[in-house]
Amino acid sequence: MSDKLSRQFAFLNEADKLKSVLRGTTLCDSSRQENSGEHSWHIALYAMVLAEHAERPVNTDRVIKMLLLHDLVEIDAGDNPIHGNHDPVEMERVEQAAADRIFGLLPALQAAEFRALWNEFEAAETDDAVFAKSIDRVQPVVANLETGGGTWPEYKVTPEQLDRRVGVKVRRGAPALWNHLKARIDAWFDAH
Amino acid sequence: MSDKLSRQFAFLNEADKLKSVLRGTTLCDSSRQENSGEHSWHIALYAMVLAEHAERPVNTDRVIKMLLLHDLVEIDAGDNPIHGNHDPVEMERVEQAAADRIFGLLPALQAAEFRALWNEFEAAETDDAVFAKSIDRVQPVVANLETGGGTWPEYKVTPEQLDRRVGVKVRRGAPALWNHLKARIDAWFDAH
Repeated sequence: MSDKLSRQFAFLNEADKLKSVLRGTTLCDSSRQENSGEHSWHIALYAMVLAEHAERPVNTDRVIKMLLLHDLVEIDAGDNPIHGNHDPVEMERVEQAAADRIFGLLPALQAAEFRALWNEFEAAETDDAVFAKSIDRVQPVVANLETGGGTWPEYKVTPEQLDRRVGVKVRRGAPALWNHLKARIDAWFDAH
Repeated sequence: MSDKLSRQFAFLNEADKLKSVLRGTTLCDSSRQENSGEHSWHIALYAMVLAEHAERPVNTDRVIKMLLLHDLVEIDAGDNPIHGNHDPVEMERVEQAAADRIFGLLPALQAAEFRALWNEFEAAETDDAVFAKSIDRVQPVVANLETGGGTWPEYKVTPEQLDRRVGVKVRRGAPALWNHLKARIDAWFDAH
């Protein structure tokens, strides 16, 4: 028992570092960059509030767990802004190594269970994972809309790029959310 | 649908403010104060990892949802450090008003559902709520242990006070966690 708890606390203390990984987007009041720990909380809340809008029925509890875990690999791999440029093959290698190390801190059975949930999220094939990805993609769009465009000017985002990198994925799991935001997104790009 | 989504996004945008509510404890690397948004993520992860150590069987999914919501009232009421001094009657009044306002942003059915979960957490009577409270109380203890005592000296915490305000509540829902940490806690107070 004691060894098991030691491993579990080692994992939870390591997870604390996610609060120091900064993302491309800011808080809704523009005061500072968001970190990946608070982002993970916010999108778990998004899933809890918005699950009824999933394109296909989902198990909200599984989606929430996926979202609580999904960014932990950034402790080693850092955040890769959706509109930035990075080598996807190298990023995949680094994130897999991070998942090995970080989930490997847990007792073996729990490590396997958490890793399976993370793998499922990354593969984006099941209904739960597709919806979880939609939620993860839509929250920065809302943050950008709330902050007058947010990081879109900095990354020179075009409407086509936003649709290709973000819109497609949001619509795949939750088209109602994209449709709801579309008028505000179009208005912003028309004005800029 | 559109009005419903507008209310849901209004709630989620309001929730963003929890990332700017600072707590008494710091991150595990002492670099800065923790905020209540990232704290909420961390303890949801605590619940996911540590649920097997609950004194009585719990529904982990409900515990996670309670913990995702539990601190939202701090957007209006602020964080009240466990070792600080505050008027419990006035605090209760302010938090109830905050819950009215913040959950009231949601569509009516969802507002009632979330408020009921928050009420259950606050009442700390069901097995799920008792365990959720234990998790909420134990995480700052771990943060303080990881940072050489953390905020205990600042608040002049005595071993008796820690046991009365924290230990009792952790043991009520998860005695195995307190027993696991007890040796480290005793060692710290013996040395200071």
